Amino acid sequence: LGASAQSSVTLFGVVDANVRYVKNSGLSSNYGMSNSGLSSGRLGFRGVEDLGGGLKAGFWLESDVNADTGTISPTGKMFQRRSTVSLMGNWGEIRLGRDFSPASVHSFKYDPFGVIGIGGQNVTSRIPGAIASYYRHDNAVGYFTPNFGGLQAEFMFAPDEQATSNTGRHMSGRLSYDNGPVSVSLSYGTTNVAYNGTSTGKYKQLGLAGSYNFGVAQLIASMYRDDLPFGTYGTAGVTAGSEDRWLIGVNIPIGNDQIRASYVRTNARKGTAGYNDSDADKWAIGYVHNMSKRTSIYGTVSRVSNDGGANFAIAGGAPTPGGWSGNSTGAEVGIKHSF
Amino acid sequence: LGASAQSSVTLFGVVDANVRYVKNSGLSSNYGMSNSGLSSGRLGFRGVEDLGGGLKAGFWLESDVNADTGTISPTGKMFQRRSTVSLMGNWGEIRLGRDFSPASVHSFKYDPFGVIGIGGQNVTSRIPGAIASYYRHDNAVGYFTPNFGGLQAEFMFAPDEQATSNTGRHMSGRLSYDNGPVSVSLSYGTTNVAYNGTSTGKYKQLGLAGSYNFGVAQLIASMYRDDLPFGTYGTAGVTAGSEDRWLIGVNIPIGNDQIRASYVRTNARKGTAGYNDSDADKWAIGYVHNMSKRTSIYGTVSRVSNDGGANFAIAGGAPTPGGWSGNSTGAEVGIKHSF
Amino acid sequence: LGASAQSSVTLFGVVDANVRYVKNSGLSSNYGMSNSGLSSGRLGFRGVEDLGGGLKAGFWLESDVNADTGTISPTGKMFQRRSTVSLMGNWGEIRLGRDFSPASVHSFKYDPFGVIGIGGQNVTSRIPGAIASYYRHDNAVGYFTPNFGGLQAEFMFAPDEQATSNTGRHMSGRLSYDNGPVSVSLSYGTTNVAYNGTSTGKYKQLGLAGSYNFGVAQLIASMYRDDLPFGTYGTAGVTAGSEDRWLIGVNIPIGNDQIRASYVRTNARKGTAGYNDSDADKWAIGYVHNMSKRTSIYGTVSRVSNDGGANFAIAGGAPTPGGWSGNSTGAEVGIKHSF
Repeated sequence: LGASAQSSVTLFGVVDANVRYVKNSGLSSNYGMSNSGLSSGRLGFRGVEDLGGGLKAGFWLESDVNADTGTISPTGKMFQRRSTVSLMGNWGEIRLGRDFSPASVHSFKYDPFGVIGIGGQNVTSRIPGAIASYYRHDNAVGYFTPNFGGLQAEFMFAPDEQATSNTGRHMSGRLSYDNGPVSVSLSYGTTNVAYNGTSTGKYKQLGLAGSYNFGVAQLIASMYRDDLPFGTYGTAGVTAGSEDRWLIGVNIPIGNDQIRASYVRTNARKGTAGYNDSDADKWAIGYVHNMSKRTSIYGTVSRVSNDGGANFAIAGGAPTPGGWSGNSTGAEVGIKHSF
Repeated sequence: LGASAQSSVTLFGVVDANVRYVKNSGLSSNYGMSNSGLSSGRLGFRGVEDLGGGLKAGFWLESDVNADTGTISPTGKMFQRRSTVSLMGNWGEIRLGRDFSPASVHSFKYDPFGVIGIGGQNVTSRIPGAIASYYRHDNAVGYFTPNFGGLQAEFMFAPDEQATSNTGRHMSGRLSYDNGPVSVSLSYGTTNVAYNGTSTGKYKQLGLAGSYNFGVAQLIASMYRDDLPFGTYGTAGVTAGSEDRWLIGVNIPIGNDQIRASYVRTNARKGTAGYNDSDADKWAIGYVHNMSKRTSIYGTVSRVSNDGGANFAIAGGAPTPGGWSGNSTGAEVGIKHSF
Repeated sequence: LGASAQSSVTLFGVVDANVRYVKNSGLSSNYGMSNSGLSSGRLGFRGVEDLGGGLKAGFWLESDVNADTGTISPTGKMFQRRSTVSLMGNWGEIRLGRDFSPASVHSFKYDPFGVIGIGGQNVTSRIPGAIASYYRHDNAVGYFTPNFGGLQAEFMFAPDEQATSNTGRHMSGRLSYDNGPVSVSLSYGTTNVAYNGTSTGKYKQLGLAGSYNFGVAQLIASMYRDDLPFGTYGTAGVTAGSEDRWLIGVNIPIGNDQIRASYVRTNARKGTAGYNDSDADKWAIGYVHNMSKRTSIYGTVSRVSNDGGANFAIAGGAPTPGGWSGNSTGAEVGIKHSF
């Protein structure tokens, strides 16, 4: 192990594991180990090359890391999180490959808990289970404008790669303004989807969010509207339809540490009467003790209250039987280390 | 991210993604994203240790990288491209593990487009679909002679690992001469194969190729003879038999850039009358703009003309129905970045 | 490939491939390539961060590398060997994730051949085939005491993650003393297991081992008791029950090289009369030529003698038919390179 000589690759990652307890009302409690309670586990390889004249080239290959079990992506994709090659100039960035959708950026950027752990807003969403490409798209062409004093836009187009159908085609964009304490963001996207076996339609994503950092606390508010034909999706047969999610959250610095809290309201829409009633609320609060910039220990508690026939439950609890529509309470304590 | 200290590992790779358009005659056109149009996507770890006295040890672990989708090998092999450990001395190199066959080196070395992208010669070959180990072999023992003024030979033996059958056994060798503008190569290999479910036979590979660099252009010519019993191969049930491929190609430098072009003729042989008639021609031309040694943008156009009942089509087009035997035209524009 | 700057990650690994010959008595001999005859093939990423005040954080992600075929874990786990995040202080180490069980450490630490290659003690054990988590456990919480002058203890608890059953729950511990020439170790573990389809019970592991380095030779002795309900295990339907294994081994240094040898006796217990008779002996001897600290070439010969109806055979030989209970003889010659 002597002296190395590679500026062309940066190796980076996050390993995050926690012990989680979940109690679904009326059922046995359960505990186990989970991962990515503070930051998504990952292992990545990335680099940027200066081509001169303001031009740069870059690549980014990033895997999941599920520290509790040693697995990566459940879909079998090695670089599930991102696999892109880019050209960058004073005109912005062109990016080709698998990447995060501009239409889904809200879901982690404007949530004190991101979309992960027991606190994340997607605990009470049917959409990630119904739409496999909810977060990321294969075959995507992305364009990012330069940053104009905090104002920036990004666009993605992912072709369907099908000669006689549009299923899978994705278009999305996001406009954001980040300057000092202020951050606001508006996004919209459409994906052609198949449902009920043979029907096709459009899944539309609308996001509006903002945050303001008062110093003593950062306040966050976000609204997410997932608009999709009511029906059965995917091979797992998830029944889903339109859904709104409102989130109010706060990050409170305590020295180097942080308190984070959020309230999420999920409102089912445009389906059957029963579906429309199946709403949910979620409260979450957590503490993050930052031992360094790279290492933190954290604890989170969270509670889901289902309305109507909604059956959202924190992952890791006792399996919920048909007709269950109670409360789900969770707690997790973990370690996050990045490199 | 402080200062590192590892001479023992070199991390390297290629990320190459492109936008591809394909039109199969009589069918809808299609477009999408593909990968590896200029250089095969890969992520690798390799190293060489000096043992003193002229001896060296080395290792090489190399994965596929399909940047468009974030996947690696379709076969599920992590180090599909190569996984070897070597000893090297003034007597040559002994190499153990999974590696490229000397009998297949021609297919990428003497082709302006390699075997990849829409320009590669294997677009009009049935063999890679029929013989799973066409390019690479597991369990291989390789020997490479020293380089004697440009003259070098390499050999591979991959045992079948079967007590009561020879199926899978591979032997191959290659003799090459590379000196200044001249490069010539002769290779031969045999692999024991199973076909028609229970029949066994020998798949014989013969390659002869050469190139000469006139400065204003490098001319390339290659001949490939794949000789195998006519029948049905593999779990996908590909019908294949003997096949010759002739290639004439050219690389023309334009400053740091490059024009590349090739003509490939595929001639089916020794099968049924219908099979023997199912030949094909392919033209391809492309331009490579090298932005640096590591980063290029490229564009390629290619056209396959099928004869008899041949049904070769550029990947990514509309699926060709039974009986289709038209033309396939493709274009792709992409970015390649290596590290 | 310029100068790098990453102290946060150490990339490490082993690539080990060999040519193996196996003769199972009464059957055709066979040869092929295998891997990990001297050291388990691996590719890993690890790092330690100093948090100040005696505290440290660390991570460890480690894959298998099967150099002969380019594959990693047969179970599809990317980081099959280890995926953990740790906090370390003068109070010891807390470790979360997938890791090696304290109850299985004996099997490689007190065996001149580890548990790998044709010489490893587990060639004559039914347990690794019956109990999938024999060596490693997902979801594990580990604790390692500080080292008190050579005395150290480690504990692991891996929850079952099941609300209405204990199947999969694992608890284990190990107490060891390593000081100068002396090494002794005692370990115990229990895992709740399912067998015969629907029955449940406890798999108990007891290990006691020690070694003494006389300078001219290191002597090793170990006893392993695997106590589990007699029955059929796993999806492969392996019939197994309790089993004792005694090992006597020796490592003899010859300059920088090494002779290693072992005798293993496997005694089946607490099953049917036929099962109890199915015992086995194994002899192994090998030579390791260390070309450097990182590179070795090695050769091993090994012979298994089955008693009663035991049918242990060295991997890679002709498949043994039902009722076979002969001898299995193997030889392998390989290269190991670490980085």
